[in-house]
Amino acid sequence: MSLIVQKFGGSSVANAERVRNVARIVTDCYREGNQVVVVVSAQGDTTDDLIEKAREINPKASKREMDMLMAAGEQISIALLAMAIETERCPVVSMLGWQAGFTTNSTYGAARIRTVDTARVRSALDNNMIVVVAGFQGLNRHDDITTLGRGGSDTSAVALAAALHADRCQIFTDVEGVYTADPRKIPNAIKLREITYDEMLELATLGAQVLNNRSVEMAKKYNVELEVLSSMKRAPGTVVREVTRMEKMLLRGVTKDADIARISVVGVPDTPGIAFKIFNALAGRQINVDVILQSIGRKGTKDITFTTAKADGEQAVELLSTKIPEIDPERIVIDTGVAKVSVVGAGMETHPGTAAKMFEALYERNINIQMIATSEIKISVIIDAADADKAVEAIHLKFFPES
Amino acid sequence: MSLIVQKFGGSSVANAERVRNVARIVTDCYREGNQVVVVVSAQGDTTDDLIEKAREINPKASKREMDMLMAAGEQISIALLAMAIETERCPVVSMLGWQAGFTTNSTYGAARIRTVDTARVRSALDNNMIVVVAGFQGLNRHDDITTLGRGGSDTSAVALAAALHADRCQIFTDVEGVYTADPRKIPNAIKLREITYDEMLELATLGAQVLNNRSVEMAKKYNVELEVLSSMKRAPGTVVREVTRMEKMLLRGVTKDADIARISVVGVPDTPGIAFKIFNALAGRQINVDVILQSIGRKGTKDITFTTAKADGEQAVELLSTKIPEIDPERIVIDTGVAKVSVVGAGMETHPGTAAKMFEALYERNINIQMIATSEIKISVIIDAADADKAVEAIHLKFFPES
Repeated sequence: MSLIVQKFGGSSVANAERVRNVARIVTDCYREGNQVVVVVSAQGDTTDDLIEKAREINPKASKREMDMLMAAGEQISIALLAMAIETERCPVVSMLGWQAGFTTNSTYGAARIRTVDTARVRSALDNNMIVVVAGFQGLNRHDDITTLGRGGSDTSAVALAAALHADRCQIFTDVEGVYTADPRKIPNAIKLREITYDEMLELATLGAQVLNNRSVEMAKKYNVELEVLSSMKRAPGTVVREVTRMEKMLLRGVTKDADIARISVVGVPDTPGIAFKIFNALAGRQINVDVILQSIGRKGTKDITFTTAKADGEQAVELLSTKIPEIDPERIVIDTGVAKVSVVGAGMETHPGTAAKMFEALYERNINIQMIATSEIKISVIIDAADADKAVEAIHLKFFPES
Repeated sequence: MSLIVQKFGGSSVANAERVRNVARIVTDCYREGNQVVVVVSAQGDTTDDLIEKAREINPKASKREMDMLMAAGEQISIALLAMAIETERCPVVSMLGWQAGFTTNSTYGAARIRTVDTARVRSALDNNMIVVVAGFQGLNRHDDITTLGRGGSDTSAVALAAALHADRCQIFTDVEGVYTADPRKIPNAIKLREITYDEMLELATLGAQVLNNRSVEMAKKYNVELEVLSSMKRAPGTVVREVTRMEKMLLRGVTKDADIARISVVGVPDTPGIAFKIFNALAGRQINVDVILQSIGRKGTKDITFTTAKADGEQAVELLSTKIPEIDPERIVIDTGVAKVSVVGAGMETHPGTAAKMFEALYERNINIQMIATSEIKISVIIDAADADKAVEAIHLKFFPES
């Protein structure tokens, strides 16, 4: 008998038909002899409706009341899923975040889980019940409802799996697993059987958008075995865990992130502390910087180029143009027509040929590389956004020749 | 400074415009220097949507999960009302039933309030906050969400007012108060300034449908001063309290209830215990009996006639026809084409002329009386349903001549 935590997102429970589908997945797992805890998000349209209702009344509503409002969404979905499981004639009980023991800090809208007291969930499992838990929500020390923010239900599921020492945490999504590239664009993308937490983190950061980073980090920290799989198709997904044996395939995937801006600060004094001042100022505004390139400019100056999320680009330019007189640049240039294409794989660092192979693929398609960044398990290039899809295809083909 | 509990039903918060209207009523009361606790129901359409969602998935859903589902309705409305109050720049906090300290028994769907621990509400009031509380819901001793059933939000409001020793509990509705007759039908119906709990109870039972009986009983028990008033029109309503001074007007109102059935059990043995057997059997099936008439039949038999709610009529007939052989009636007749018309007033018992005046009004319109029942503060007649509106008008005119 295994203890399995299953998580279903908003689209998986979007309507009655899908709720029934989820109930069948859950009860099948239960009938195979497993203890099953299910974490669900709010139905997709419920969330939209609630946001619209709030916006109509008070676009600047306090975050505390927004959390009170939004938490009703999961309350609805757990009750509906429990009702659907009742029709499958399995014993079931739904629990709100606080009933399932989730306590959080008080950052409304983006709370962090403090503790998960599993006593009540344990007791229900001991009574052979399926437990349906509201994801995304908890209670702070003032007994106020909080929500965990983006990707919160994934985090709820992983935290509960960790606290229960579950054998596996299955994250059901609308994709069948983690692929070597976006399967909607690269037809021969390969579904990975296994992947490490670090690889998954790099892929998530790079825009693969399968799993929320926070939940992968938590899974890594507490060594929770994850599985990413489809709620629509019954098939094994991709398992995320610490893999000790070395697999043949070194490269885990090719990803694209077009949601970036490249900012060049041209002609700043070539003196110590300039880079610190720039990036410290950006950090002060919560602007995350990704790839950084520093080059020597003309006449004792230097140029600093970096990328940020596209949404932060204008603010970064304004900040650097006006707020830090010491850097005194000749000019600041922003380019939002760029994309980051990356290859990820844990075996990469011991195989220097990987970078060369990637650059070769780009060269063969005549794609110009603007910036390069490497980490132990990742190589990224910044290129023209118009070339991005072509680049992914070329790199994927180079590493995974058509079979 | 007074402590006022205000209660708004589902139609009063049905959309953004109405929520804003309620926020203005609440904040006006607060700005007049009062402490204000607001109890709200779910938005009308939310309740309907949730019931429909449940029905689509599992028409026989467990009551525990139905309560989990339905309680999300008030959670949404308290958050929205709190947001609307925020736009009026008044400090406000919303609380779910359990946060406001409501504990109940475990009768899901029709729970009874056990205790109201007002510590958290008190603390918020002491911090000059308006407190918005989810009506209709509480928590049982298993920490499960329960709902109070029909009229539950009125009961929540009265219970909270009692526990807080509030100076007044205002029940906002879509009528402006309690009238001497239905003002939609009797144009010169008079809005009552004051009424006693007992009179209000009789009026509610008789179909005036202004206040839920359970909440009036609770208000009487804990001596909570109620006011029934309109959420749409700013005007004093009707105050319900123990009135010591005797007012001139003895009659409080004329009401009609057409939702009844008259059942005649004809020709049962004229032996002791027959009536007991009949009404004990009906009580066993939760069938409430109202007016009862027993008359002598032919040849040592008797006839027993009574009224029930229309919905219970068929079940009562079936029960008496087949399940109690001892009563062996000649025949059982059911008539659903009847109505009960009543006059209510605390001064009535000391004024025997009231009944005569009522019968005179009916006689003048040639309306036949089938049954008569009287209590200390009420006289009811059962008449043909087709005559009911005419009867109310005639009686009202007799007691309140056109001015």
